[in-house]
Amino acid sequence: MANVPNRQRDYNEVAGSSIHRLAGLADGIFAVGMTLLVLGLAVPAMDTVKSEGDLLRQLGGLLPAVVTYFMSFLTLGIFWVAQQTQLGRLERANRNFTWIHLGFLLAVTLIPFSTLLLARFHWSRVALVEYWLNIFVLGSVLLVAFEYGARAKLFPEADTASIAHLTRRRVIGAQTLYLLGMLLCIFDTHWSIAAIVAIQLNYAIAPRIPLLRRL
Amino acid sequence: MANVPNRQRDYNEVAGSSIHRLAGLADGIFAVGMTLLVLGLAVPAMDTVKSEGDLLRQLGGLLPAVVTYFMSFLTLGIFWVAQQTQLGRLERANRNFTWIHLGFLLAVTLIPFSTLLLARFHWSRVALVEYWLNIFVLGSVLLVAFEYGARAKLFPEADTASIAHLTRRRVIGAQTLYLLGMLLCIFDTHWSIAAIVAIQLNYAIAPRIPLLRRL
Amino acid sequence: MANVPNRQRDYNEVAGSSIHRLAGLADGIFAVGMTLLVLGLAVPAMDTVKSEGDLLRQLGGLLPAVVTYFMSFLTLGIFWVAQQTQLGRLERANRNFTWIHLGFLLAVTLIPFSTLLLARFHWSRVALVEYWLNIFVLGSVLLVAFEYGARAKLFPEADTASIAHLTRRRVIGAQTLYLLGMLLCIFDTHWSIAAIVAIQLNYAIAPRIPLLRRL
Amino acid sequence: MANVPNRQRDYNEVAGSSIHRLAGLADGIFAVGMTLLVLGLAVPAMDTVKSEGDLLRQLGGLLPAVVTYFMSFLTLGIFWVAQQTQLGRLERANRNFTWIHLGFLLAVTLIPFSTLLLARFHWSRVALVEYWLNIFVLGSVLLVAFEYGARAKLFPEADTASIAHLTRRRVIGAQTLYLLGMLLCIFDTHWSIAAIVAIQLNYAIAPRIPLLRRL
Repeated sequence: MANVPNRQRDYNEVAGSSIHRLAGLADGIFAVGMTLLVLGLAVPAMDTVKSEGDLLRQLGGLLPAVVTYFMSFLTLGIFWVAQQTQLGRLERANRNFTWIHLGFLLAVTLIPFSTLLLARFHWSRVALVEYWLNIFVLGSVLLVAFEYGARAKLFPEADTASIAHLTRRRVIGAQTLYLLGMLLCIFDTHWSIAAIVAIQLNYAIAPRIPLLRRL
Repeated sequence: MANVPNRQRDYNEVAGSSIHRLAGLADGIFAVGMTLLVLGLAVPAMDTVKSEGDLLRQLGGLLPAVVTYFMSFLTLGIFWVAQQTQLGRLERANRNFTWIHLGFLLAVTLIPFSTLLLARFHWSRVALVEYWLNIFVLGSVLLVAFEYGARAKLFPEADTASIAHLTRRRVIGAQTLYLLGMLLCIFDTHWSIAAIVAIQLNYAIAPRIPLLRRL
Repeated sequence: MANVPNRQRDYNEVAGSSIHRLAGLADGIFAVGMTLLVLGLAVPAMDTVKSEGDLLRQLGGLLPAVVTYFMSFLTLGIFWVAQQTQLGRLERANRNFTWIHLGFLLAVTLIPFSTLLLARFHWSRVALVEYWLNIFVLGSVLLVAFEYGARAKLFPEADTASIAHLTRRRVIGAQTLYLLGMLLCIFDTHWSIAAIVAIQLNYAIAPRIPLLRRL
Repeated sequence: MANVPNRQRDYNEVAGSSIHRLAGLADGIFAVGMTLLVLGLAVPAMDTVKSEGDLLRQLGGLLPAVVTYFMSFLTLGIFWVAQQTQLGRLERANRNFTWIHLGFLLAVTLIPFSTLLLARFHWSRVALVEYWLNIFVLGSVLLVAFEYGARAKLFPEADTASIAHLTRRRVIGAQTLYLLGMLLCIFDTHWSIAAIVAIQLNYAIAPRIPLLRRL
């Protein structure tokens, strides 16, 4: 009977199975991450600005920070949409699935750090590779979460194969493009940054270019 | 059949369609934005205050920061209500609509930056125009989101024309007033700030003045 | 018919009526506020600590900051419970009610500022009165929101009189105690701080002391 | 009748009983806490980095901060899952239960402080004991919340005994391990940090080791 302590039952079987709570935590982390990014845009100090011209020049100097800000907002947006899409298809969650997603959220919280690093050292391959690694971890963990969920039958059975196909094609296509974009830093890190922004705009705007839609 | 991988089906058709998640992310971003504004109110440093009089004087010196703080909280409140109103009318969302709203939220995260800039350089037309641009983008993107949603039939058919009329009149009326308020900076940026606060109070308090209700 | 633009209809009639969104925004603002408070607890700088004894002494020096931190967390907790109680009784919301609550949330976002001010200048009556004013505004605006909601028939009719009685007694009782606590700063601000903490603990722990339950 | 003011009725009987709001506040606080942790990872200053080698060395110097960051994210994840599990089993909440959980959330907001303290003074027993105390309070308050909820009949009657058994075994097992881990600081604080990370990984990954599953 249910009210007799059951020694065979495991704490982990009853833990962490609320999709709603996981979505709530994720929305909060993405929201804070997106808003913290703006702290990378330092408002000019008062004593460096004596005239309108000074202010315009100082704001112009924020351009690299604005580009990385925009890039990181796109990154967070893309992965927020991707996670929402995965969670929206779930029939139920369990503890392991929840912990894989907590790993994903750990990588999300690192985006403001990676962004500030790249904004400050945009000439550095070390900073660029660190940024790319962050994107790579985000994509990989989301794929791992999907593969685990498919094996643990967390998605509706009739849909799983179809979602699997779309998810794998999307993650592998996107990660291949990001890898190629990152490799451009062999020539110049600014080419890599331009390529990554272009890839992200492609996923955000989703233009109707047949070749790109395949990826 | 649903469990056969369907090569014609596109990832984007299944992505990003949860109104609930979009509302959760938006509430988080507005909440963080509204709370970060307060960081613009710097607590006086300990060594500058020796007496009650010193503290009173220092708090008095925060007045420009308090005015821009109040103005920005009103801005965020007005656009939070506007977005809530739009999302509350939706029948369903899709990926493109979600991305237009992510663009709107990008502009929301910039409000703390624009606010701090204007608080620090309240004499500067550059800072004022930057602030106005932020408001302009917020209003425009919300209108674009509505127009897209109406064309993509995301609103209940019976309501769309009526909501369209109210939304367009509201956005165009408000943006015209903001533009006029901004142009006052030709004379003095402080007139512009006073005008923008007055316009915002009008929308927040919604007094029963026939002329203003038309806008 | 509904799909004919209706010139008599006002934007404000359809705006801002989601209780769920208001609760989501409020939870976010309280959550950020409660977490930002901790930034008032400055971790000792590395070069000021050479030994375990140094660290212990530095942590001891954080005591005033810890007391105001605890006091402010209690304040936010009390008003979060109070707002939750009011929203939980609502049958529906409207735009004016939403804006009164946005005013309440504006006062919530100021609590981290007031807290840091009082932690830094705990000897100052100016800082104490500013803190008390913040609590006073929180309580008053919540009462105004209730009175407006009662007149606008936003609460279930059968309950309104009973909720009105409990709400008024609670707000007026608590605000009278806070006022008396604040007035102790005529003698010493530290007495006021102790009194305010005691009042808040009374409301958080809700002991079964007949006299206090009346208030 | 309900609309007659009832002098016997107490404000506290109607206050603070929304599980949904409590979950929303908790998700927000955990989300902000998890994201604030990253502020402990200071991006290297611009003038300390002249080459790729400098940047690599500076990032290497962040290693202790990364370890405590990872440890604290695990801590927050474990207690988020634990709280979610408890709230997910609730049938209803009341004001006292809500205040016990607010006490739990107070301890959650302190984790970024404890983390930064330990990252900065990883050689210090004082910092380590403070960190352990934070974990101890988190576990204890969650157990107190459960015991109160069981006595106040907030859980479904048929399940209470079974949940009680699992909850007590889990909290006492975990807290015993944390205590042993902390005591290793008698030899070296770095052993304690390694032990705590190992314990947390055990709970996050939940390996199928019979001995550990018992705890």
